[in-house]
Amino acid sequence: MKKMIGKLGVTSVLLIAMSMSLNAKEKVYKLKMATTWGKSTTPLIDSATNMARLAEEMSNGRLKIRVDTSNKHKAPLGILDMVKGGQYDMGHSASYYWKGKDIDTLPFTSMPFGLTAPEQYAWFYHGGGMELMQKVYSKHGVLSFPGGSTGVQMGGWFRNEIKTLDDLKGLRMRIPGFAGEIMAKLGVKVTNIAPGELYTTLERNTIDALEWVGPAMDIKMGFHKIAPFYYTGWHEPASEMQFLINEKKFNKLPKDLQQVMIVAMRVSAYDMYIQHYDMSAQAWDKMKKEQPNIKIKTFPTPVMNAMKKANNELRVELGNKSPVLKEVLDSQEAYMKKAREWTKMSDYLYLKDNL
Amino acid sequence: MKKMIGKLGVTSVLLIAMSMSLNAKEKVYKLKMATTWGKSTTPLIDSATNMARLAEEMSNGRLKIRVDTSNKHKAPLGILDMVKGGQYDMGHSASYYWKGKDIDTLPFTSMPFGLTAPEQYAWFYHGGGMELMQKVYSKHGVLSFPGGSTGVQMGGWFRNEIKTLDDLKGLRMRIPGFAGEIMAKLGVKVTNIAPGELYTTLERNTIDALEWVGPAMDIKMGFHKIAPFYYTGWHEPASEMQFLINEKKFNKLPKDLQQVMIVAMRVSAYDMYIQHYDMSAQAWDKMKKEQPNIKIKTFPTPVMNAMKKANNELRVELGNKSPVLKEVLDSQEAYMKKAREWTKMSDYLYLKDNL
Repeated sequence: MKKMIGKLGVTSVLLIAMSMSLNAKEKVYKLKMATTWGKSTTPLIDSATNMARLAEEMSNGRLKIRVDTSNKHKAPLGILDMVKGGQYDMGHSASYYWKGKDIDTLPFTSMPFGLTAPEQYAWFYHGGGMELMQKVYSKHGVLSFPGGSTGVQMGGWFRNEIKTLDDLKGLRMRIPGFAGEIMAKLGVKVTNIAPGELYTTLERNTIDALEWVGPAMDIKMGFHKIAPFYYTGWHEPASEMQFLINEKKFNKLPKDLQQVMIVAMRVSAYDMYIQHYDMSAQAWDKMKKEQPNIKIKTFPTPVMNAMKKANNELRVELGNKSPVLKEVLDSQEAYMKKAREWTKMSDYLYLKDNL
Repeated sequence: MKKMIGKLGVTSVLLIAMSMSLNAKEKVYKLKMATTWGKSTTPLIDSATNMARLAEEMSNGRLKIRVDTSNKHKAPLGILDMVKGGQYDMGHSASYYWKGKDIDTLPFTSMPFGLTAPEQYAWFYHGGGMELMQKVYSKHGVLSFPGGSTGVQMGGWFRNEIKTLDDLKGLRMRIPGFAGEIMAKLGVKVTNIAPGELYTTLERNTIDALEWVGPAMDIKMGFHKIAPFYYTGWHEPASEMQFLINEKKFNKLPKDLQQVMIVAMRVSAYDMYIQHYDMSAQAWDKMKKEQPNIKIKTFPTPVMNAMKKANNELRVELGNKSPVLKEVLDSQEAYMKKAREWTKMSDYLYLKDNL
């Protein structure tokens, strides 16, 4: 009998040990992600939902990430605050949306006349960009990762053609952020308008021009009916979205699930870049055929040069606002100097002969 | 006592049930991957080793993938055969290496005057490319996935400048594959030489020109010392490597580990593209400074036009060899027609003003 109890004791210990190990393995981690986007803001919202789906599938259901659209949490531009404060474990948004709260976060989305998508990914992953982004976000107790690139954004829709610098003087344009400051320096009356009101504002003649994203996202908006001059891009050559994660929450996950999260974010970011490339190609093909009144333009050289000059001056002012910001801007600039030489020799010269 | 035994019985059943579930979860799946590459063939080998590392980390050690270099298995160009035959579970190589065995596999690496890296990823993932690649590989009982892009490869090193079409007549050049056939049509004496003998063959004046990859991989080879005219790319605008997996072996994996494998391959492919972009930029920056004798050239327009004409004629011949191959070539061409219009409007016109 003693032997029997002894055996039972061993079994029980074993049972408890195994059960613990099973629990640790099988524990389901539920996370909530707040996004800036509405449910039909393709492809931006897709990067977030794909990430959540991949994490759940790869972890065999041990990770469950609920993705909330802005309709749910009502704070589309407050993602950093919510992740920082712990109301949400994760976020998907664009870093430059909270430049008003922390100016250092501005350059991780895109800068005028800056890096293209492959150059920017190379800077993030091999040129020190990830380390700098973490330096900026760590003071908020938040981890930040690339969340998908739109590639080159178009320069916007204009009611009339821009032939000289004078045509910009007094022009009423919706163009937010740092690019707006550049335009303001050239005499443009810059305004910011919520996305939902863009079309009516243009229709009612309250503005003369606006920028949004590119063919895939612009086509639904109908801007071309009123402002048919469609300018090529200069101000957001590769807008990168960001995943944010509350650092404490992330640190509580087991190592394997941390890696599942990191890889799911990384692949969803790249995938969004490619998805948007395809969507843009399809949308532009359709637009071109169905809307022959659209006129593609690039800004004349004197206008472009004035924009570049204003950009350079404003970058110096920007760098003076914070030493970390200056470090990021300098790092991007130095990297671009090298990378652009290669882009020219590879992609640019190949394309030049194959258009 | 009966009660006691009864309890023990229940415990035992429970113990067996749990142990089974634990085994199913904890079973370690060991896979072997054969690659075409040597251990220092960066970044190509890195795509394979990164994939293996990520799969192991994300699965908490349930997936263990041993990566063998060609030094181990001695069959660098026999990867498809080894995966098909089951000697290896997986492979990492380039699809066009076995065009002699199955011509349909040719276009999944890169085609002259074809898709750029983002265009090609968009074709694979949104333009029907993955479905066509699977159609071609399924007859071998193999699954195939993108395995990393080199981006634009350079057109090669030439002892003398190519000024006219006549300069190509009788020129002895190492350029393998379909691009070699194009060159042959223009009068070039095309040869293929193993990578290890390239430098000596050039040095001993047995050839006048050769193509390899790009700055990052060429710099170590020393070709510039003998053949300083370095031509921009036309023949491999985005060479995509491939992961191969034996279909039966893949189907035996649990669903979550299948997804871990798929995502690890997908992210490693993108990462190789970005890693090679960075390496090329760094290598070209170094080359330019240290080797001022290197002269960057693009082929003159009449030469380029003759290459394009030969390419078009050879593509028709190629399409006649197999209906599936024709379907793939037509699919790539139709996709490129749309995508290139967008590439022009976005990347090309942006770069044109920012070089």
